[in-house]
Amino acid sequence: MTLTVIPIDGLPEVRRGDELAVLVHTAADEQGTPLTDGDCVVVTQKVVSKAEGRLVALDPDDPAARRRLVEAESVRVLRRRGELIISETRHGFVCANAGVDLSNVEAGWAALLPLDADRSARHIRDALRARAGVDVAVIISDTFGRAWRHGLTDVAIGVAGLAAVLDLRGEADGLGRALQVTEVAVADEVAGAAELVMGKTARVAAAIVRGLDPTWRRDGSVRELVRAPADDLFR
Amino acid sequence: MTLTVIPIDGLPEVRRGDELAVLVHTAADEQGTPLTDGDCVVVTQKVVSKAEGRLVALDPDDPAARRRLVEAESVRVLRRRGELIISETRHGFVCANAGVDLSNVEAGWAALLPLDADRSARHIRDALRARAGVDVAVIISDTFGRAWRHGLTDVAIGVAGLAAVLDLRGEADGLGRALQVTEVAVADEVAGAAELVMGKTARVAAAIVRGLDPTWRRDGSVRELVRAPADDLFR
Repeated sequence: MTLTVIPIDGLPEVRRGDELAVLVHTAADEQGTPLTDGDCVVVTQKVVSKAEGRLVALDPDDPAARRRLVEAESVRVLRRRGELIISETRHGFVCANAGVDLSNVEAGWAALLPLDADRSARHIRDALRARAGVDVAVIISDTFGRAWRHGLTDVAIGVAGLAAVLDLRGEADGLGRALQVTEVAVADEVAGAAELVMGKTARVAAAIVRGLDPTWRRDGSVRELVRAPADDLFR
Repeated sequence: MTLTVIPIDGLPEVRRGDELAVLVHTAADEQGTPLTDGDCVVVTQKVVSKAEGRLVALDPDDPAARRRLVEAESVRVLRRRGELIISETRHGFVCANAGVDLSNVEAGWAALLPLDADRSARHIRDALRARAGVDVAVIISDTFGRAWRHGLTDVAIGVAGLAAVLDLRGEADGLGRALQVTEVAVADEVAGAAELVMGKTARVAAAIVRGLDPTWRRDGSVRELVRAPADDLFR
């Protein structure tokens, strides 16, 4: 089972109300890598937020305004260091600055996280089926830091048509013994794989991940990836 | 730039003293996907630990013995919950049970982390160059949990011939403004991508990641991925 990760180049600048399914499908066709059944399409948060109008005016030289915006997007602040705020969003994500991001948006504006990126993913998935007749999974990805490890990775913030966490409890290892590693965050690994072909400086906002295990297709949700605060030893 | 992730099937059961470079090279040849210059070979910790003799006898029904072993492999215990210990290893990794693992090893034995998985990766890389004439990067991967997010992902615990963290500080986003996301843990994303084709129940212990940006090739180290405790807001 070989996996192929194909960047989708040539998306136009996305504006409020744009139908991302159409933009992605057209761009994939035009570069000669049309979507096919079973693909997983990874779309970055930034273009989803733009299509959904999740932009707010923000003076980049007003740190107090930015702090207020981050706090408004948070349900709980976990740590502060200088201008950095690590907080929990209303989705249950723990990330820097509540996902409020000034990169790759016009000066004077900030992008907020989608209100419900599972819904965003389902919308793109449904639109691709209705308009292009392809049955694909969709992941909305964003770039988060981690505790303990340096550097950022892309993770899933919305999922449709794919398991977010693969539950292997009860299965056996290669020697017939019960597995210790039992729940694998495949949606996060898919988001990270897509990041490898998208980069941050190039304006590549989507990718195709082709060849995922077909048994992983189901109605997944990013909620599988959100650790309940009561289960979290580090919050 | 399309990325291809190819599982390497058919590795024999690995024993102490085995030369993993030879096993991986032979298996890749035999399945018709020979290694080529610029590939990144991902090898799981388990077979590296086996080849390096990092196995110790452990009665699986003696939780106190297991606890002592985990503590001996830790420099600092961060949290305990029931039998679970989250600790910092001497490498600086924060993970469950100090990486001591009973899956995919014979009953009565436990696998410990390699003493220096950067060195393990360099050894495989050098041996592949010397014996097979291919210039590849090597990542040693293991499966770790995360704070805040549910489910495990594969990450790099050793790196050779590849940047572990890509430093984009000073580069511009697609609109010519300074990037906010500046340091990307590409080695962790590569390890996670490889996990997607290896699985946990199949005995697939290596994969080829082909098509990584050639500018990422350099003398990387897992030390780039280890956040210093003083810089870590969650330790």
